[in-house]
Amino acid sequence: MNKLVKTPYKGCRDLFPKDKREQEYLFSVMKDAAALYAYEPYDGPMLELVDLYKAKSGEELINDQIYSFQDRGDRFVAIRPEMTPTLARMVAQVHRETPKPLRWFSIPNLMRYERPQKGRLREHWQFNCDVFGAPEVLGELEVLNLVKDLLKLYGANETHFSILINDRAFVDQLFKEMLKITEEVSYKLYKIIDKSKKVSLEKLDKMISEVLDDEKAIILKNYLSLKNFEDVFDFFNIDCSLKTLYQKIAESDLLKYLKYDPSIVRGLDYYTGIVFEVFDKHPDNRRAICGGGSYANLLQIFNEPALPGCGFGLGDVTLKDFLITHDLMPDFTHPDDAIFISFQEQKNEAQALKISNSLRDLGYGVENHLSGIKINKAFQIAEKKKYSFLILCEDDSYTLKDLNHKKEIKFKTINEEVLDCLHGHEHE
Amino acid sequence: MNKLVKTPYKGCRDLFPKDKREQEYLFSVMKDAAALYAYEPYDGPMLELVDLYKAKSGEELINDQIYSFQDRGDRFVAIRPEMTPTLARMVAQVHRETPKPLRWFSIPNLMRYERPQKGRLREHWQFNCDVFGAPEVLGELEVLNLVKDLLKLYGANETHFSILINDRAFVDQLFKEMLKITEEVSYKLYKIIDKSKKVSLEKLDKMISEVLDDEKAIILKNYLSLKNFEDVFDFFNIDCSLKTLYQKIAESDLLKYLKYDPSIVRGLDYYTGIVFEVFDKHPDNRRAICGGGSYANLLQIFNEPALPGCGFGLGDVTLKDFLITHDLMPDFTHPDDAIFISFQEQKNEAQALKISNSLRDLGYGVENHLSGIKINKAFQIAEKKKYSFLILCEDDSYTLKDLNHKKEIKFKTINEEVLDCLHGHEHE
Repeated sequence: MNKLVKTPYKGCRDLFPKDKREQEYLFSVMKDAAALYAYEPYDGPMLELVDLYKAKSGEELINDQIYSFQDRGDRFVAIRPEMTPTLARMVAQVHRETPKPLRWFSIPNLMRYERPQKGRLREHWQFNCDVFGAPEVLGELEVLNLVKDLLKLYGANETHFSILINDRAFVDQLFKEMLKITEEVSYKLYKIIDKSKKVSLEKLDKMISEVLDDEKAIILKNYLSLKNFEDVFDFFNIDCSLKTLYQKIAESDLLKYLKYDPSIVRGLDYYTGIVFEVFDKHPDNRRAICGGGSYANLLQIFNEPALPGCGFGLGDVTLKDFLITHDLMPDFTHPDDAIFISFQEQKNEAQALKISNSLRDLGYGVENHLSGIKINKAFQIAEKKKYSFLILCEDDSYTLKDLNHKKEIKFKTINEEVLDCLHGHEHE
Repeated sequence: MNKLVKTPYKGCRDLFPKDKREQEYLFSVMKDAAALYAYEPYDGPMLELVDLYKAKSGEELINDQIYSFQDRGDRFVAIRPEMTPTLARMVAQVHRETPKPLRWFSIPNLMRYERPQKGRLREHWQFNCDVFGAPEVLGELEVLNLVKDLLKLYGANETHFSILINDRAFVDQLFKEMLKITEEVSYKLYKIIDKSKKVSLEKLDKMISEVLDDEKAIILKNYLSLKNFEDVFDFFNIDCSLKTLYQKIAESDLLKYLKYDPSIVRGLDYYTGIVFEVFDKHPDNRRAICGGGSYANLLQIFNEPALPGCGFGLGDVTLKDFLITHDLMPDFTHPDDAIFISFQEQKNEAQALKISNSLRDLGYGVENHLSGIKINKAFQIAEKKKYSFLILCEDDSYTLKDLNHKKEIKFKTINEEVLDCLHGHEHE
C-alpha cells in the first residue's frame, strides 16, 4: 500500500478544535444577523445535476471550476460550487404558495476547483442570504443593511470595510448605447472591467486596445474613472435602482459604508440590477469578503414567472482573514468551560464517575480525567484549559475548587452550597 | 437545453425552513451533549483521497458505496462517506502533543451510494464522537453514557430505545477457537451474523449451511441464541472489555438501556473491542440509530503507535424518524419569533425602515413587510407566524401591539415603556 499522507486534500482545511470553534463563532454571528432580519434557514444537497449549473452559472465556472463526474446511474453530477442554483431550484418548488417577501439564508460547504491562494481555497463555507419578491430596491436595501450589520456584529465598522456598489443598468447603457458592442465583445469587456483595479494601467490599456478602437476606449476609460455616486449619475443620466436606493439611504447609517465603484460588474454572474462587493480597507486582503446583487429572473430556467430577488454570498475564508487582520477574532484557543474531575488513586475511580454523571444530569459540562493523577497535575490541566472549577475525588468526599476565586468546598453529596458556588460563577 | 428538474438529486434532501429548523434543533442538542462530556469540535474536508478509505474501511464500502472520481490533477478522490478516516488522519497529525484523553466530535455531511429507502439516504449528516487514550473500558463507558444522555436530552428514555452491545473478543473466540474458520469464511460469516435478525430462520439456516458444516452450524446457532450478559459470559468464559464494563455499570443508569445482542458485530468495520448499536424499540424503525465501538489501532495506517479509541456515528435521518415515531420532535412549523413591522400607505415606508433598523440595533429580530398592507392583513401575517409583537407605522407615530396579551402602546420614539413591553414577553 502507498504511504498515506496526513495532510488534507489540496485546497481543503482540517479544522482542529480551535479552528472549528472559530468557525462556529463565525456561523453563530451569521445566524444572529439572519435572525435580526427574520431570514429563515434552508439547506440543500451537496450534489446537484450538472445541467442546473450549466443553466445558471457563467461558462467559466462550468468549464474550469467545477467538480463534476458521472454517477453510477450515468447522471452527470457536480459538487455544489455555489448555493444560488440550489436556492433557485428550491424556490421554484414553493414560491407560488409562499408569501412574499420570501427571506432565506444558508451556510453550505462548497467546492470549487481553484488554485489555492490567500483568501481562496477549494473548499469553503459560504453565508448566503436572499430575499425574493420585495418591492423595488427595498430588497437591495435590506440585503445591504444585513451585510453591514453582520460585519458590525463581528466588531467591524466603516474604518475596516467598504461596500463597493454599481448597477448593471449602467453597464448595459455603456455597452449597448455608448459603445454599441456585440455580445462577444461584452463578454470580454466584463472580464477586463472586473480585473481593471487588479492590473497596472499599462496592462489595462493593452487589454482594452485589444477589444475596442481608440474612440470607444476613451469612453470606457471615462467610465472607469468615475469615483462617486454624483459622477455616475451625471455620466449616464438614466433612472435605475441604484439612484433610487441612493435617495433612500440619505439619512441612514448605511451611507458611510457605501462607495460607488465602476469596476464592480460581476459580469459572469446572473445579476441584472444592483451589484456589490464588500472589501477590506486593509491592503493585505485584496479579495472581496462578500459579493451580491439583484436578479430579475432566477426562476426562468424552470419556466416559472419572473420573481425578482437580491442576495449575497460571504465566504468564511476571506471573512476570517478580515477579522484577524483587524484583531477582531476572539481567542478560541481554549475549550469551552467545563468542570474538571480528577482522582489520585484507582480506588476513587468509581467516585469520580458517579459525580461526573450527577453533575451532567444537572446540566454541567464535565471533563473526567479518567486516569488517576496527582493533585498538582490536576490543577495544571484545569488551569491550562482555563476551566473555572476542579473537583478532587478522595475517599468518601469531594473537594470543589473555585479556581477563579481561590476558594474551596468539601462535600459528600452535591448540596446547595456546591450549586451556589458553581452557579455564582455565572452571575458575575 | 433539457428541461431542468426541480427535485433534488436522488437520495438527497432539500431542507426547507421547517426542515432546516428541525435539523438545527437536532444539531444543537448534539452540541449540548458533546458539551456535557467536554468533547471538542472538529471538522475536515468534504473530499479525501480514495487511498485513505481503502486503507481504513471495509471492501464493500470502497467498491459499491463510495462517490469517487479523478480530479483534474489525476488524484483519485472521494466524497467522504464517513468521518472516521478523516478523524484518524487528523488525530495522526496531533496526537503526540495532545494530552489524553483526546475527546472530539463533529457533525459532517456525508455521501454514500445507496439505494434510498426508509432511514437510509445518500446524503446525511452524522454526529461523530470519539475518545482516544482513555484507560480500559472507561472510554467505552463514557461514549455509551454520551449516547444515552444525548437521546435523553431529546426526551427519550428506556421505553423508547435500547443500546445493543457485544464484544469483538467473543466473535474472535467463536471464529478462531470454536469454529476454527479461515479469514474468507469469517468475512462471509460476519455478513451472515449481521443479517441474522433481519431474515427468516429458514433463510438464516440456509445461509449458514452454505458456509459451515452441521457441527459448526450448531455452535454458531447456540451463539446466536445468547440472550443476555450472563448467557454470554457463561458461554465464552474469557476475560474481555464487555465483562469489565458490565461490572462497572452495576449501579448505573446506563444498565437499563444496555442489552447483550450476539448479532451486533459490525464485522466490516475497523472495531476491535466493544461494539454497539442503538435501536428504536418501535417496530417501524428497524435501522440502527447509531453504531459504534472501540478500536485498538486506528492510526496504524499512518505508521503511528497504537492509540486505543472508542466512538460512534449517529445519523440525522434515523434520529429524526425515531423522534417523530415517539412524538418527541418539537414543532418547528413556525419561524423564530420576530417583531412584525407594517405600514398601510407608501408614505410611511421610510418610517417603517427607520424603526426596523432601530430595533435591530437594539438586538431585536424584525420582519419588515416592506409593502403597504391593510392592518387586518398585518395581524393575519403576524398571527400566522406566531409572532408576539406587531408594530404599525402611521404618520409620525407607531403602535406596538402585544399579540399575546392583547394590549397596545402608541409611541413616537422607542422609550422605556416600549422596551418593557418587548422585554416583558421574555420574562414570563
